[in-house]
Amino acid sequence: MAAESENGNCKAWAARDPSGVLSPHSFNRRAVQSGDVSLKIIYCGVCYADVAWTRNKLNDSKYPLVPGHEIAGVVTQVGADVKGFKVGDHGGYSTHIVVHERYCFKIPDGYPLAKAAPLLCAGITVYTPMMRHNMNQPGKSLGVIGLGGLGHMAVKFGKAFGLKVTVFSTSESKRDEAINLLGADNFVISSDTQQMESLKNSLHFIIDTASGDHPFDPYFSLLKVGGVMTLVGFPSEIKMHPASLILGARTLSGSVVGGIKDIQEMVNFCAANNIYPEIEIIKIDYINEALARLVNRDVKYRFVIDIENSFK
Amino acid sequence: MAAESENGNCKAWAARDPSGVLSPHSFNRRAVQSGDVSLKIIYCGVCYADVAWTRNKLNDSKYPLVPGHEIAGVVTQVGADVKGFKVGDHGGYSTHIVVHERYCFKIPDGYPLAKAAPLLCAGITVYTPMMRHNMNQPGKSLGVIGLGGLGHMAVKFGKAFGLKVTVFSTSESKRDEAINLLGADNFVISSDTQQMESLKNSLHFIIDTASGDHPFDPYFSLLKVGGVMTLVGFPSEIKMHPASLILGARTLSGSVVGGIKDIQEMVNFCAANNIYPEIEIIKIDYINEALARLVNRDVKYRFVIDIENSFK
Repeated sequence: MAAESENGNCKAWAARDPSGVLSPHSFNRRAVQSGDVSLKIIYCGVCYADVAWTRNKLNDSKYPLVPGHEIAGVVTQVGADVKGFKVGDHGGYSTHIVVHERYCFKIPDGYPLAKAAPLLCAGITVYTPMMRHNMNQPGKSLGVIGLGGLGHMAVKFGKAFGLKVTVFSTSESKRDEAINLLGADNFVISSDTQQMESLKNSLHFIIDTASGDHPFDPYFSLLKVGGVMTLVGFPSEIKMHPASLILGARTLSGSVVGGIKDIQEMVNFCAANNIYPEIEIIKIDYINEALARLVNRDVKYRFVIDIENSFK
Repeated sequence: MAAESENGNCKAWAARDPSGVLSPHSFNRRAVQSGDVSLKIIYCGVCYADVAWTRNKLNDSKYPLVPGHEIAGVVTQVGADVKGFKVGDHGGYSTHIVVHERYCFKIPDGYPLAKAAPLLCAGITVYTPMMRHNMNQPGKSLGVIGLGGLGHMAVKFGKAFGLKVTVFSTSESKRDEAINLLGADNFVISSDTQQMESLKNSLHFIIDTASGDHPFDPYFSLLKVGGVMTLVGFPSEIKMHPASLILGARTLSGSVVGGIKDIQEMVNFCAANNIYPEIEIIKIDYINEALARLVNRDVKYRFVIDIENSFK
């Protein structure tokens, strides 16, 4: 959540300790080298990983810590060896969690920059396993557990792929938007055992975006023989009965973000199919409240910081 | 574990109650109908499922209970509507656990009948997920957890597919046979943390045949990015950290036995590639001791009952 200032220093907000409270901070970024692309950050999405990092939940945070990994902006400088980018292009970057490197992606002309930002983490995190497990076959059925930043993108991709989408949520309050805003075909309160029972062996795929602890066995029973559940949320533990996988030859797969090629493909797919994340735009000085609301799941469906207007 | 007697009655050994103790029993089988094939049972493999059923571990056993589902024999009668079988053919049948129906398979000429029996449960149970998850790519690496009836077949299939096979076992006593009899490339005692550590991110696939409870996270860490673990054993619970699946985009899949087409394909593959289960042939009056030894994992690697000579 940083903006390049005119003198080459960067203005940002940083967490100082595991309380995770962010406050103004500035730092120097090195000059653009021959392989670099410099991006003026315009928008930055806010993800639960930002909570984890600022609060040192993975025990590897170094303070001061400037979070932010769903970034969209405008190219301001292009290194001599870089092909395919020119000054003024819209670009995005993401943090590849495994290798901690950053890559710049091209955002197609006309795609709103504010909505591009969440594609680079929320979007790709559900898109990657959907493609890997062939969840793009029209007419098949998809369950989506949890309706936050990841879940609402899974619903949008599912509908774009021609799937019949059922949303599982703990909260009745999300029914209306799930059906009428996001286009889900079905909405189920996961504690309603009768409704759950009626869906037994009916789903080809499930994407589990819930980060809270929850039972797994009831969801496996909803999958058809050979069905696949993909875990993209981060509960504290996975616990299930082997029969849930063995009888019915079912699969549980994990996934996080995605590869470079997949990210560009996904951004292009969203532009071509008019798929846009639902966002609430905030200024940077609202970030601590936004992170608190995020923890309380009080966001529809992704906060995006208007960086450009926050640092004027 | 039954043999057809000349007057149409069947001689068998049955369990009478959840003690699981088997004793002589006889019953009537109906006359062969137009869609039936009648098989004179020559050999019957002994599987841990027989322990589960005779001891009512799944709470659905009905007594008297005649176990046995790895059956090889000789066709004695063929119904009018049945194509592809003639009297004198070698055939096998298996219980399809999901639908509780029986199918007859053709055992290729020259394949030893006693060794054909274990293919129909132990063999197909590991063959099916290996084919489904493309574990037949020469040069890739396979881990096999547990070296019993299932595990030793996984090693044999792995070597036939050209894989580099590592066996994980709790018992040093199995090292020699794993390497020299079964042809594994590597043998690891799973409690040896140093050896486990040295294999991190090195395996494309793992087949987990262990039915005893064991941790899962240490094995996931041995898989490469995108690696697949298949569970074919039946521990009491699966428990793992989500990071084991999510970071590295790994997959856990379950499987049990296999489809009709796959079983015939597998039997033919074994005949064409000289793949034979390692067996210990017993008479039916040894069955209670055999089941006790099976529970104690004291078998190399599959008991097969010589039914023909047991009921003379």
